[in-house]
Amino acid sequence: MTVNINCDMGESFSLYEMGNDEGIMPFITEANIACGFHGSDPNHMSRTVRLAKRHGVNVGAHFSLPDLAGFGRREMKIEREEMANIIIYQVGALKGFLEAESIELTHLKPHGALYGMAARQEHIAHAICDAGDVFRVPIFGLSGTLHEEIYTARGLEFVPEFFADLDYDDGGKLLITREHKDVDAREAGRRALRAVKDGIVVSTGGKEVAVNARTVCIHSDTPNVLDIAESVKTALSDYMAAK
Amino acid sequence: MTVNINCDMGESFSLYEMGNDEGIMPFITEANIACGFHGSDPNHMSRTVRLAKRHGVNVGAHFSLPDLAGFGRREMKIEREEMANIIIYQVGALKGFLEAESIELTHLKPHGALYGMAARQEHIAHAICDAGDVFRVPIFGLSGTLHEEIYTARGLEFVPEFFADLDYDDGGKLLITREHKDVDAREAGRRALRAVKDGIVVSTGGKEVAVNARTVCIHSDTPNVLDIAESVKTALSDYMAAK
Amino acid sequence: MTVNINCDMGESFSLYEMGNDEGIMPFITEANIACGFHGSDPNHMSRTVRLAKRHGVNVGAHFSLPDLAGFGRREMKIEREEMANIIIYQVGALKGFLEAESIELTHLKPHGALYGMAARQEHIAHAICDAGDVFRVPIFGLSGTLHEEIYTARGLEFVPEFFADLDYDDGGKLLITREHKDVDAREAGRRALRAVKDGIVVSTGGKEVAVNARTVCIHSDTPNVLDIAESVKTALSDYMAAK
Amino acid sequence: MTVNINCDMGESFSLYEMGNDEGIMPFITEANIACGFHGSDPNHMSRTVRLAKRHGVNVGAHFSLPDLAGFGRREMKIEREEMANIIIYQVGALKGFLEAESIELTHLKPHGALYGMAARQEHIAHAICDAGDVFRVPIFGLSGTLHEEIYTARGLEFVPEFFADLDYDDGGKLLITREHKDVDAREAGRRALRAVKDGIVVSTGGKEVAVNARTVCIHSDTPNVLDIAESVKTALSDYMAAK
Repeated sequence: MTVNINCDMGESFSLYEMGNDEGIMPFITEANIACGFHGSDPNHMSRTVRLAKRHGVNVGAHFSLPDLAGFGRREMKIEREEMANIIIYQVGALKGFLEAESIELTHLKPHGALYGMAARQEHIAHAICDAGDVFRVPIFGLSGTLHEEIYTARGLEFVPEFFADLDYDDGGKLLITREHKDVDAREAGRRALRAVKDGIVVSTGGKEVAVNARTVCIHSDTPNVLDIAESVKTALSDYMAAK
Repeated sequence: MTVNINCDMGESFSLYEMGNDEGIMPFITEANIACGFHGSDPNHMSRTVRLAKRHGVNVGAHFSLPDLAGFGRREMKIEREEMANIIIYQVGALKGFLEAESIELTHLKPHGALYGMAARQEHIAHAICDAGDVFRVPIFGLSGTLHEEIYTARGLEFVPEFFADLDYDDGGKLLITREHKDVDAREAGRRALRAVKDGIVVSTGGKEVAVNARTVCIHSDTPNVLDIAESVKTALSDYMAAK
Repeated sequence: MTVNINCDMGESFSLYEMGNDEGIMPFITEANIACGFHGSDPNHMSRTVRLAKRHGVNVGAHFSLPDLAGFGRREMKIEREEMANIIIYQVGALKGFLEAESIELTHLKPHGALYGMAARQEHIAHAICDAGDVFRVPIFGLSGTLHEEIYTARGLEFVPEFFADLDYDDGGKLLITREHKDVDAREAGRRALRAVKDGIVVSTGGKEVAVNARTVCIHSDTPNVLDIAESVKTALSDYMAAK
Repeated sequence: MTVNINCDMGESFSLYEMGNDEGIMPFITEANIACGFHGSDPNHMSRTVRLAKRHGVNVGAHFSLPDLAGFGRREMKIEREEMANIIIYQVGALKGFLEAESIELTHLKPHGALYGMAARQEHIAHAICDAGDVFRVPIFGLSGTLHEEIYTARGLEFVPEFFADLDYDDGGKLLITREHKDVDAREAGRRALRAVKDGIVVSTGGKEVAVNARTVCIHSDTPNVLDIAESVKTALSDYMAAK
């Protein structure tokens, strides 16, 4: 058993820089690479795939609603078939760059508003599965939502994420924030370890609630992301080594 | 030996219709499918791939400069590496839809201004080869230009096209027109047959000039394209059957 | 008093044609011109403005959600300030072409999904008013919805539209259809006249229901739009002349 | 007589930040605001216009080729009428935001590759003049190029720029660099002053060459732009005050 750390990567676009991909890559095991619909472009996709390869990091497709101007954070009303086609297009495009580097696609992860929509709207979760049927790799998501329910019912492999830099409420529900603030890096490492080892997180109300964690997600736009990444990596590595 | 007929397909976009794909598909053997950078979108790519599959027509990627507003007909100054990445993105995206239908990519063909640029600019022809190295399928182009020279020098398979609905000058040079007009369909069939059989076309000046034809291209925006397609198909089929 | 006939115009894009603007322009008094976010582009905006000027037709801005790939028909979750900025951008762009022709902007009309959203979502109706405050021209919309309620409350001039080619239910509610089918042109003319003259339409259930009509909208994608336009124009002109 | 300092502003896009607009605004007198075709979007245009207004800074339109993915730095082959329409669209859009703030457009300045193309290609310089005829404000450019020759011949006001942070060769030709490096801020102030006062700059070869400077341009992506802006402002202000 290994425990993974995933992070959204390759979101720079045109001359615009976003995220410290070079800095974060050494600490993660799975890069979710943007496919040009909320961020990135062919140049940055190529660079990021090569960067991941150099670090031996797995590459998944981080696909989005078609909304570059809104960074994929504005919900859109889209029918299932159209949504599936939009996803297949993006994943295919990323696979072009993987083919260029002779590496394999390892997972799928919806971005931004699409992630949230898939957790609540059946036809969107099914659209993601329609793409999952094509590419046959695991899908990252939030346990206890339609992510888990529908992906699993469709016979696809669902990989639950734990968020080291976000809070959970007393019902075990993730509290998603628009902007990510500094969090205590050591504490994030401890939380990630406990989530992985015991399946428990301490909620904002001080309760121990159950969580399901097969990969730990780190946000590249949390200001002290490098510290968090290192802390989480160290905590999980020590635990793995000790087993 | 078979002689092929290719046509640009799937250029509709959003609610905008372009070309009579359903009508033309029965007459061709190779569909060059638009990849969303000059025309098409994920919905139309999916539909066109399935349409081609239904007709047993081979599918190639018809990639473009990134210029939807100009339908890929405005030249752009782009460096080799960026151009290659733009092509890899588009071909990869199309392959996503091919993967969904379990069919293979059979060829590459640049669109519009990019086709012309690759015929004259070395770094663009090389960018196409860089993508060709990734996808390892033949590339359609114009013989006697950098298409032939560079693709061949790079060890890629070059497939020369003959244009049944365009004229050639006394030097054997194709006379590209912005708008395609009605041509005599029977005559187009005869010209295609002669080009394939004897490697000869009669120029605008009445001279017999050598042409190299392994596939015959038909333009979907020539008004009487269906008649031309049928005529060319009949002429070539009869010839093949007789051999 | 004059009664107006409005129609969405200028929705062609790139090489893609949509609508018969040349044919319809003689029959209408108000052109709602697309601004490039669901259809159109600078070339088509310029052409359409000049076409309207030649026919002495008033020009309004037909602005949209930022969704060219979905022709502005997919709802998006957008905040008020962002929505207002998106509208101001589009209306300003159109006014550039009006400035080039020395003509004035006469009205605003939201397109597609945005039209429907403004009828139901307060913050969207307010965003349209925020743009209305800038450009100080009347806004076309559907009476009995937030269009009327909020535009009027904000002190902006609201112009109710009657749809000659769509049905109304027994409650007076417009039955919006995704695709527009042929309707009886003579009947459309009679319906428009009665709506304008008496404020009454006969519903799908055969009841006489009240409607409020200061401008009659005709859809350019109804197949027999030219017949409808002519019939409505004749009916309304005769009535005006007789007064 | 006043001497102006201009800077490109408002080039952030979506969630992507570019340039320190808040920091630079106090030092300049003229903001060239991006119009969404190489950078910016409706939100950033609105913000930047309001920021300029707050600082009492004049607002010009900084329009581009339609190339967001290339930040307007890739040359495109575009015909005069299409180019003019593309410019009118952008300037009009910016004027929407000026109308919202009740301020006037003060100048035009082409961005990136378009700036260079207008200096060398007649039909592009004329396209800019076609837009200039519509909006009737001065156009910033490079003296000794088609900017000066054609704008002036067309009866439009041409405003020559001096570049405080770039070098000139012995022939007086500006040496444009792709990336802008740190320059000595004090020296930039002295150079700007001498250019304005005496019309002279010392070339890379140590010669005194004539320059024509009615506004001094500062690049927001030069790393020490704030120091340069302050130094240039101080130098020019002292000179103005002393006159």
